[in-house]
Amino acid sequence: MSQPTLPFAQRLDNVETSAIRELFKLLGKPGIISFAGGFPDSAMFDVAGITEAVNKALTEEAGGALQYGATEGYEPLRRQLTAFMTQKGAVGVSPDQLIVTTGSQQALDLLGKTLVDPGSKAIVEGPTFLATIQGFRLYGADLISAPIDADGVQVDQLEELIKQHKPRFVYLIPTFGNPSGATLSLERRKRVLELAVKYQTLIVEDDPYGDLYFDAAPPPSLLALSHEVPGSRDWLVHCGSLSKVLSPGLRVGWMVAPAELLSKAVMCKQFSDAHTSTFAQATAAQYLASGRMPETLARVRKVYGARAQAMCDALRSELGQAIDFVPPKGGLFVWAKLTGAGGKTKDGAAFARQAIEQGVAFVPGTPFYCANPDHSTLRLSFATADEDRIREGIGRLAKAL
Amino acid sequence: MSQPTLPFAQRLDNVETSAIRELFKLLGKPGIISFAGGFPDSAMFDVAGITEAVNKALTEEAGGALQYGATEGYEPLRRQLTAFMTQKGAVGVSPDQLIVTTGSQQALDLLGKTLVDPGSKAIVEGPTFLATIQGFRLYGADLISAPIDADGVQVDQLEELIKQHKPRFVYLIPTFGNPSGATLSLERRKRVLELAVKYQTLIVEDDPYGDLYFDAAPPPSLLALSHEVPGSRDWLVHCGSLSKVLSPGLRVGWMVAPAELLSKAVMCKQFSDAHTSTFAQATAAQYLASGRMPETLARVRKVYGARAQAMCDALRSELGQAIDFVPPKGGLFVWAKLTGAGGKTKDGAAFARQAIEQGVAFVPGTPFYCANPDHSTLRLSFATADEDRIREGIGRLAKAL
Repeated sequence: MSQPTLPFAQRLDNVETSAIRELFKLLGKPGIISFAGGFPDSAMFDVAGITEAVNKALTEEAGGALQYGATEGYEPLRRQLTAFMTQKGAVGVSPDQLIVTTGSQQALDLLGKTLVDPGSKAIVEGPTFLATIQGFRLYGADLISAPIDADGVQVDQLEELIKQHKPRFVYLIPTFGNPSGATLSLERRKRVLELAVKYQTLIVEDDPYGDLYFDAAPPPSLLALSHEVPGSRDWLVHCGSLSKVLSPGLRVGWMVAPAELLSKAVMCKQFSDAHTSTFAQATAAQYLASGRMPETLARVRKVYGARAQAMCDALRSELGQAIDFVPPKGGLFVWAKLTGAGGKTKDGAAFARQAIEQGVAFVPGTPFYCANPDHSTLRLSFATADEDRIREGIGRLAKAL
Repeated sequence: MSQPTLPFAQRLDNVETSAIRELFKLLGKPGIISFAGGFPDSAMFDVAGITEAVNKALTEEAGGALQYGATEGYEPLRRQLTAFMTQKGAVGVSPDQLIVTTGSQQALDLLGKTLVDPGSKAIVEGPTFLATIQGFRLYGADLISAPIDADGVQVDQLEELIKQHKPRFVYLIPTFGNPSGATLSLERRKRVLELAVKYQTLIVEDDPYGDLYFDAAPPPSLLALSHEVPGSRDWLVHCGSLSKVLSPGLRVGWMVAPAELLSKAVMCKQFSDAHTSTFAQATAAQYLASGRMPETLARVRKVYGARAQAMCDALRSELGQAIDFVPPKGGLFVWAKLTGAGGKTKDGAAFARQAIEQGVAFVPGTPFYCANPDHSTLRLSFATADEDRIREGIGRLAKAL
């Protein structure tokens, strides 16, 4: 049977299957140590707590957990998520100001669907989350790259880009960014909110990592700060997720947005998947209600903090001058740059291939840029290997270099 | 705070929030008997079986059930779904020929995303599933309505429409259609598959209701028949769902499609929601593996069959000549037409408003047409009320008329 070629939609020409997918196929090699993933450690999942939560949901509210539900989200979960955000300083947010999404990936898809026409401009950080770049481009977005440093997006340059391009929105991961690990400073956060009001430009705050800090808590989210900048809530979208802190398998994320945008997103979500699994939503709601989350977060922070430390120490001692990075204060990633010192390679992709040969994997940084990539960059996740494996893996990296 | 108007994408102009949403808001009225829903009866859910399944999944495969998973779907579920289809005659389908979707609604969304450009033509039945019309239009589809009768789509006319419009695809609900309740005859099924090959036109078979037959099983699905029509598998998409037979809250559907289309759909799904909840997928896989499905289906068929009978009997005795319908042989719906006999109204929407006054709700048929609606039609679901309530509700309908 020869496969005929179908008339596909033109929007598919805007994207290609993730460049790093090919790399991921190599991860099956036996014995490989992977720093390539963007996922939490399965060993961190609170299986007992989730088991208790789902059994409670099926006992107390089987109808709700198994039946069709509101597109906006399961009401008990919307209330729990509101409380979760309020504890972190987001005052004045009510359950009807958020919708539950099928992972925060769906929030990004709904933003593309509701806001992006072919050729619409949007500003993202350079570098930013890979699936953001591809997902927005699928709707035809023309992405503009805003430069970042260790304190997050550079706001003076962001202001110039907003003035010049009048984007539909600005997408930021202000806290423990993926892939950069960078965190936007408090002062810059306020400036970003002021820019939103000044230029009547929507700011999207994607915040899946904010709870994963190692020592001190990061500055408050843009959502939490918005009450200090009058009018900024009208221009702010906040995306949250339980994927990194509880379980990605639930696919429970959420989006806080201005009312008009939220109602358009709900209309689109009706036709995307009707609603997020009520089975997963009721489980998540019971879990949050059980009060186990603070303990789970404390455990995860401690483990990831120790792993981050182990990775940074090993990178320093094993790769020395050949690599440069800012130790992250939270999240899942070390973002590093090959310096070329001692005549070593400065090409992240070539280095990734050599590393696979030595039995260690990471993601080169290039695909995380929507424009002008820095080819010397790489992303190393410390989340899924224990400290011994991390040291062993960094040793292999040194050998590969 | 005045809400500023945001620059929304033009695609949103193609759709409006479901016309029947307003009606649904009235369903909260105390004492109302609703024939308006499109959902199964919560009392039919096998809560014990699902509870057992999720506990087994969390005991035996907690990592898989709670971690990120492949966009294509959770492998054990893909195998179970393949076996489920094979039992129903779909021979020669392998797990890698299907992807798991977040409800079959997402399969429709992925078809829109991968196949529809603004202005692309697609043929649907008149009438068809409401969210299909709106979902495809969101991508800019120009929908053509193919007429149906009690034996499903009229294939001679379908052939003419295919020749004339050269559509990107033809979307059909061949078995116990929503809203029509109609089932495509065996002879017409073969003709449809032949048309697919002859005109190299993709046929989408949406099949959420096929398992809900009351007496004899319906003709085999287009998927099952495709091996009898050489080349037709290359032009066939089959969408399945556990929503009507097990639980909508799991949001587990699937799509069988030609390889090239499937790989494009996977790419798009990556950016839609990364993957369907592995928590729900592992639970569904364990449920199917448990062997409880045949018993569950037998129970559901019996209950819905009795309710359908009660509704048809009551309609005949209470509304007599004023209403015309073909008794359904499966599914969830009676599709009826006001005849105007005895000077009664022939306007389904006006009748719906009068019915609400009398404490009974249904959905007028007009919104189910993408063009040339028959305003005298209405959709009555018999799934969620028991037989006494059905008789009481139809009595109220008679009063309203």
